[in-house]
Amino acid sequence: MSQAGVIDDPMATSFMKALVGRIRAEDMYGAWERKTNEMLLDDYIVSKEERRAMPMISDPDPDTLARVETFFQAVGLAIEQETGLIASPMMKMSHEGFGRVILTTGRLVVFMKTLRDVHRFGFDSLSALAAEGAKAVNAAVAEINRFPEVARA
Amino acid sequence: MSQAGVIDDPMATSFMKALVGRIRAEDMYGAWERKTNEMLLDDYIVSKEERRAMPMISDPDPDTLARVETFFQAVGLAIEQETGLIASPMMKMSHEGFGRVILTTGRLVVFMKTLRDVHRFGFDSLSALAAEGAKAVNAAVAEINRFPEVARA
Repeated sequence: MSQAGVIDDPMATSFMKALVGRIRAEDMYGAWERKTNEMLLDDYIVSKEERRAMPMISDPDPDTLARVETFFQAVGLAIEQETGLIASPMMKMSHEGFGRVILTTGRLVVFMKTLRDVHRFGFDSLSALAAEGAKAVNAAVAEINRFPEVARA
Repeated sequence: MSQAGVIDDPMATSFMKALVGRIRAEDMYGAWERKTNEMLLDDYIVSKEERRAMPMISDPDPDTLARVETFFQAVGLAIEQETGLIASPMMKMSHEGFGRVILTTGRLVVFMKTLRDVHRFGFDSLSALAAEGAKAVNAAVAEINRFPEVARA
């Protein structure tokens, strides 16, 4: 993932709220109730050094894949919050950390991305995470505004 | 899969030609060279009785999944032949034979289908197979004609 710009109050964006909400939804037994939102997002923060040390052999582990999937689910939820239209993500990993994710709204592909080296999925900081999420949300909202009738088809 | 209408010369449709082509492309060592096209499609033909006898526990086996995926790849190739636009399928199975497939062309979702009971994927006859493929191709071409600029976006 590229490291996009800086966001002043990352936790206040609709994407980050959606991401925290998705993670808390998985907390069936209340084990994370006392954890702060920042603590829950800790797995998304990976320093350059940590990233470099991660091996890229074989398929990424299920936790990593779930993290990537949750990221794009949160993008979808934030799109819904901004536009009122449901955006469903569909992620398909082929092999060895290579794959593709698309988000659709009605008949419109609002976002698509080729995924590479998913083993190393992570961000330098909460601000970078928030910026990357916001970038995807904004791109999708722009597509919806470009083809509104297709997004509602 | 529903059993759609009857096609006079099923093997002559662009969908069936694409399907046979996809299957022959997997024949790395020429083992199927002497097989007729009809023989290669034999796995797609499942009678009502055979279907009923198939257990639907656990996930469908890899051969069945590959067969479903090849079916939609052939739909994509036939769409390309009719419109000149590349249609990429994306299939995602969640669990126990339940999933979703979409085909996209540019920014347009040209075809989408919820898959159920994939264990029993099959058709009564070559004619029914050809009809179901043609139905998907025609639906996709109609969407492309409806939103031509999105399909080229």
